[in-house]
Order: sequence, then structure tokens, then C-alpha cells
Amino acid sequence: MTALSTLDELRAACAALPTGNDQAAVDAATRQDMLTKPQGSLGRLEEIARWMARWQGQAIPRIDRAHVLIFAGSHGVTAQGVSAFPASVTEQMVANFAHGGAAINQLAKQAGAQLAVYPLSVETPTADFTVEPAMSPAEFLDAVRTGYDAVPQDADIICLGEMGIGNTTAAAAVAAGLFGGTGSDWVGRGTGVDDAGLARKAKAVDAALSRHADALSDPLEVLRRVGGRELAAMFGATLAARHRGIPVVLDGYVCTAAAAPLALLHDTGLAHTMVGHVSAEAGHIRLVDRLRTRPLLNLDMRLGEGSGACLAINIIRGALACHSGMATFAEAGVAEK
Amino acid sequence: MTALSTLDELRAACAALPTGNDQAAVDAATRQDMLTKPQGSLGRLEEIARWMARWQGQAIPRIDRAHVLIFAGSHGVTAQGVSAFPASVTEQMVANFAHGGAAINQLAKQAGAQLAVYPLSVETPTADFTVEPAMSPAEFLDAVRTGYDAVPQDADIICLGEMGIGNTTAAAAVAAGLFGGTGSDWVGRGTGVDDAGLARKAKAVDAALSRHADALSDPLEVLRRVGGRELAAMFGATLAARHRGIPVVLDGYVCTAAAAPLALLHDTGLAHTMVGHVSAEAGHIRLVDRLRTRPLLNLDMRLGEGSGACLAINIIRGALACHSGMATFAEAGVAEK
Repeated sequence: MTALSTLDELRAACAALPTGNDQAAVDAATRQDMLTKPQGSLGRLEEIARWMARWQGQAIPRIDRAHVLIFAGSHGVTAQGVSAFPASVTEQMVANFAHGGAAINQLAKQAGAQLAVYPLSVETPTADFTVEPAMSPAEFLDAVRTGYDAVPQDADIICLGEMGIGNTTAAAAVAAGLFGGTGSDWVGRGTGVDDAGLARKAKAVDAALSRHADALSDPLEVLRRVGGRELAAMFGATLAARHRGIPVVLDGYVCTAAAAPLALLHDTGLAHTMVGHVSAEAGHIRLVDRLRTRPLLNLDMRLGEGSGACLAINIIRGALACHSGMATFAEAGVAEK
Repeated sequence: MTALSTLDELRAACAALPTGNDQAAVDAATRQDMLTKPQGSLGRLEEIARWMARWQGQAIPRIDRAHVLIFAGSHGVTAQGVSAFPASVTEQMVANFAHGGAAINQLAKQAGAQLAVYPLSVETPTADFTVEPAMSPAEFLDAVRTGYDAVPQDADIICLGEMGIGNTTAAAAVAAGLFGGTGSDWVGRGTGVDDAGLARKAKAVDAALSRHADALSDPLEVLRRVGGRELAAMFGATLAARHRGIPVVLDGYVCTAAAAPLALLHDTGLAHTMVGHVSAEAGHIRLVDRLRTRPLLNLDMRLGEGSGACLAINIIRGALACHSGMATFAEAGVAEK
């Protein structure tokens, strides 16, 4: 694998993505139609099993090692008054993760997944992207590599998530930069801003779009200029998982926005990913529509931390349990249609 | 508790339902607002925790003992050609449950739930309800009592499910009988009937509505005349759970139709229940709309067996894990809004 030490190397790694294993997916589908249920009656559980088969490269996929990777970053754009919480909460929540007190600690344990948290220079916010690029090329590549290297080689599946006060504004800016539209199309209340805060978020995104107008045709430049370190890291992790044959469960708005450039850099760039849930943050449904994907869960959540992705692991485990454990019509002596 | 030996005793048991524990729900809500997350950001997970608190009667609800109860019955209406599978499949699937080969065996294990299967005279189909009541009063009460007695006193939560070739036609007849409309409003493809089969299902429901027109104002009579033994049993189990302070996760169309009479017999009859998923069977979304409830999952499933309810247990476990395990803002030293 390339060292991703330059933007050109990163671009090359995004262009040369492995395809999934068609035969494993076909074999999985063949097996599904022999199992003791009306054909197709397990709905998305069957889709999940075929997707896992394709990207794990085995007709009977499994999850022995599920990993939740959380990336945290600090945002200069918080100077624009875009969050209901002080920027210091990012570091405090990283400590909370370490002590096991956050939602994702409970959800990872409940889903039988290993949690790892990667703070990315949280003591040093990125630059305010309304006035300059959030990250220099070197800072951006550092963050991408941190995410890339965080993906365990032996993972059967990974969930990605984030923490970063101000990062729903970054997500909105990335989404607008990639797919067009204005700030008000893409911002939401995040952790709970009031109407004035919502207006400030839209204004910040519009300022960013204007400031970086010359760079919006380049998905990686969008991510570098108006994203954030944790977004760059989630992008890197998504890319690494593809190269390593590991299915990815994306979380909510920030996480999906972080991975989105890969869909524009390669036809099937996000085919190895599934969006675990649709966030209550309005921009997310718009974003998943643009990506032509359908989130697995809709639980009105808007927390981040990988919480929705981690809940989805339970459903994926259920899908694989049926796929691997059910009897065939012949084995069970059940009459077919 | 009454012996439910007459329809009048059953009616009395449906009229005298315990209310939930308001204080426990209030205490749960108070706790939620102290936990390290933006208020309300866990969405339906927070709603679930309050609902569990109310019906378990404790501010920090728990699931140590989850039970999946599956009821199986045979249907005389299969004589009308309403199913894609032969009626013999009901007994064959009961054997498959016993041998651990069905979807629900895998899903119950994955969700950490104990599975019990109750075949209700599957060797003797109910009468064809297009020409006479499906069950005599004695047969109906027997089935209700089987369901009532199947609910373990010490369960923390139960999932209900069913198996019965022909029973989506019974569900459609019950739904139409309770809420109005014609057969074509309420039938769907079930295990996979073709257009002609779908037309036969609609015709069978219309014939039932006409044959039993004099009884449709009485929800229990609707269930006795056009339901089936497994539907009556799920009704009994739903009633028992309410009297025993046990939250219930309903499954798809057949299960929800079976419980629906309780919503018409008592203002808050189904308040202790949650619909685990919305089925791909079109009548189900119509039915949950009438019951003003919102299913937890939408996975395009249409299998029955309690499969959707059982998957929902994972989400409920996640909700309770957050509710009981998260640190408060004060404990974690995280700044509030």
C-alpha cells in the first residue's frame, strides 16, 4: 500500500479500488433461496447478508471482530457561534469516552464491538474555514493517514463515528461543496442551536462556499478546506477498509459527509459501506438521497459518536445469524411453494 | 386473576387494565436530561427507556429475561386458495422451530431471548370463516387462555409472533372487521401469492365481512369469528402482559391485528406494547396508522415468527444500556449547554 504521503498518492489510492467478490454474493443469494422462509421474506436482512458476502469475499460472512472507531477534532469555525455547546466539550467528551461514560461506550459493549477513540490534535482547532482552508495539505494528509492506519487488518466490520463541537457545520459545508445548494439547504440544529444559531450556521457555510469557490470541483479539496480532522480521518478509514476487504457502517450526517468524496472519486466508491441510521439532522436525509443509499435505521437520533452505526451492528448480526444458521427446505423437510 | 372461563370474564379483564407507573417514567425522563448528550439526542432510544420505565415500574428498567412466544395455528380459510404454500407447512415449520432451523431460532439466540413455541391444535384447522365462525366460543377462550398462561410471570419483556399458513388473510379480515374497509384495502401477498391469489384473498375477506356483518361492532367477536387460534393466543398474551406489568413487543401484520381488539376495548389498551417493525405486507402500515403507533424498524421483512419483534429487542437493549450506563454531566465533568 502507498504511504499516502502526498495528495497525488491519496488520489491514486481512491482511483484504484478493489471490486467486491461477485461469486460470494451470488453464492449467498443461492443459499438464501434454499432457507426455510418464503423467498425474499427477510427483506433487508437478505440484502445485508449478500452485501457482507461480497465485501468479506465469503458466501457465509461472519462477525467475530467488530470495531467502532471514533475520531475527535476541534473546529475553528466555532468562532462563528455555530454550536449550542462550548468548544471545550470536545476534549471533555474524549475523556468521557476514556472513562466509559458516553452513549457509545454502552452501545459498543451491547453490540459486542471493540471501541477505540482517536483524538486528532483536539487541543489545536483547525482554521476557521469561513476565512481560510481548515487544514493545510500536510495537516489533511496526517488526519487521513490516522484514519487509514486505525482500521484493524483483521476486522470483520467497522463502524465509524466522531465527536467534534462545530462539526455539523463542517458536514453541511462539505455536503454543499460536493453537491451544490446553499447553507440553509444543508444546516440543521446540531446539538440544539436556536434560530439565531441556525442562521449563523447557514451564513458560515455560505461564507465558506464563497471563500473556497475555486476548489469545489475537487472532492478532496472540499474535504481539506471545509471539513475537519475527524472528517478526514473517517475518509481515510473508509478508504482503508475498502482496500482491506472490510465492510463499513457509516453513522450520521458528519460521518456520511466525510465519506461522500469517495463516491465522487470512484463510481462504486461507497459500495462497501452502509449507512447505519438516518439522523434527525435534516441535511442527512438529503445527503443519503444524493448518495442513492438507504439507511438501515431511523430512530430520530442526532448524537454522533457512531451511535447509530453501532446499533445497526445488531441488525447485521441478526442478518448473518439467519443466513448462516437457518435450515434449508430439504434439511427441515418443509414443503416449498 | 379471573379464570377467563367465559367471554364475560374476558371482557372484564380487558376493561380493568392497570395503568403504567407515571412516577417511574418521570424519574426516567429526569435522569435522561442529566446524561452526557444533548437533550433528546438519543431520539427514540429515550422514548423506549421511558416506556420501559413506565411499564416495568422502575426508573432504570432492565432486560435480564426476554422471552419470545410463538403461537401456531391452522386455518380453514386455506380452502379458499389464499396461500402460496400448502397448509401442511404450518406443522412442518413447528418441527423446524423445535429443531432450531427457523429464522426465529437464530434471531432469538442473537437477541439473548428465550424462545417458546405453542402449537394450538395445528392438526385441526379452524372453520372456514367465509362460511362460519372460525372458532366456537369455547375454542376461542381455550386459545386466549393458552396465550395468557404462556406469559412468564418473571419476564422483563416479551416478543410475540406466529406461524400459520393462511393467517395474513385472517389478519386482513380482523383488521377490516375492526376498522372498516374492504378486502382489497387490507390484503397483501403474504408468503408470495400471485395476482389471482391476491384476488382470492380479497374475496375471502369480503365474504367474511358479509357473513359476520352482525358481529363486527364487537372486537372480541371479530377475533373469534374471523381470526384464528394463534391470533387469539397472541391477544391473550398481550392482555396477560398488561396485568403482569410486562412490556410487549409486537411483530408484524398478523400479530398487530391480533392485539388490535384491545385498543378498541380500552382507551390505553395497547400502551404497554410497541410494534417492533413494520411489515412489507401493505395492510400493516395501514393498521399501525389506525392504532396511532410508530413501528421501531422498517426492514422490508414479511416473515412473521416474531422475527421483527426479536430484532427490535436489540435496539431496546441499546436504549437501556445508554439509560443505565451513561455518566451524568456532573459525573463526567462535561460542560452543559
